[in-house]
Amino acid sequence: MAVKENLRPGGRSARVQASVHEAVRTLLQSIERTDVTIPLIASEAGVTPSTIYRRWGDLQELLADVAVERLRPDMQPVDTGSAKGDLEAWAEQYAEEMSSGIGREMIRDVLAAQDNSNACKCYAFTREQMELIGDRAQGRGEGFPPVDAVMDRVVAPIIYRILFGDAPSTDHVRGLVADVMRSEAVAAIPPLPVSARKSG
Amino acid sequence: MAVKENLRPGGRSARVQASVHEAVRTLLQSIERTDVTIPLIASEAGVTPSTIYRRWGDLQELLADVAVERLRPDMQPVDTGSAKGDLEAWAEQYAEEMSSGIGREMIRDVLAAQDNSNACKCYAFTREQMELIGDRAQGRGEGFPPVDAVMDRVVAPIIYRILFGDAPSTDHVRGLVADVMRSEAVAAIPPLPVSARKSG
Repeated sequence: MAVKENLRPGGRSARVQASVHEAVRTLLQSIERTDVTIPLIASEAGVTPSTIYRRWGDLQELLADVAVERLRPDMQPVDTGSAKGDLEAWAEQYAEEMSSGIGREMIRDVLAAQDNSNACKCYAFTREQMELIGDRAQGRGEGFPPVDAVMDRVVAPIIYRILFGDAPSTDHVRGLVADVMRSEAVAAIPPLPVSARKSG
Repeated sequence: MAVKENLRPGGRSARVQASVHEAVRTLLQSIERTDVTIPLIASEAGVTPSTIYRRWGDLQELLADVAVERLRPDMQPVDTGSAKGDLEAWAEQYAEEMSSGIGREMIRDVLAAQDNSNACKCYAFTREQMELIGDRAQGRGEGFPPVDAVMDRVVAPIIYRILFGDAPSTDHVRGLVADVMRSEAVAAIPPLPVSARKSG
């Protein structure tokens, strides 16, 4: 799962990225998505169209890049005092955000790009959140399933249902969480030391 | 989950659909996807571009419509003699097909369309296959998990991993199947009569 290197903050390249992203967000709020073009974005951002083509290749890649930045979590999962509570609170909020109009559009933008590195970034963001909840559980001396099991049994069904069917209900999401938290995996796998968990 | 009505076979509308679909498949094999346009498809299919615009709206909807037809299962799940064997054989083949280049492209086409009725059709196709395996299990007097559990715990993680990360390994897919087949749900839920299962 290749993930693009982060840019040096404050460098010229980072400034161009910031202004182009800002231009895309502004345009998406004010005009129809199908009317957004690279020349329009360039003009709004104060760069040349060729700067954008050189860096992003095409409009779809640029939209995916902007979407993934918006999907980057801006906070740690809420600490509710228990692993099950943390996972439930996180999963309910995640399902709600991802099934909103803007959430669906962001997922679609990320998946529409030929290059799947942005989709992998989203996967990595979510995994990190799950690792944080797992580490916190360990700190409290609670059991927690392996992160792969949480991805397969909580995250995957939420996203699959949003993309292919109807958004899962709150009860359904709670059922997924309850299920993975009482699975054999929780009891069978002893909490890992933080260092081992991080490198997994 | 709205699903478009099937067309009356042999009607004029069905003939137009068949020739346009055929034209799309031919063009996708011979030229770059980004070079495929509605005028080109119309010329290949022997219809006017406006026929295509009127019926499908835009290229993305047409590509989604073609993709969903290719994703329609053309056979029943293999009968291996046991529910677990049937589900395992189905899931391995599904993961292999969906993670291939053409499989990924079809999923992407289905999801890129604004109208999600095609995505829902894919969901319905897969659900039907799971119901068939469940009915067969019942005929043998075996337990089988509720179809929703199979969708969440086998189908969803396969598709999620293909879209957002790396394709799941055969071992991973087998683990998903083993897991859902030994879950509490299998033992707790008695086999339903075929009529009740079909309407569920």
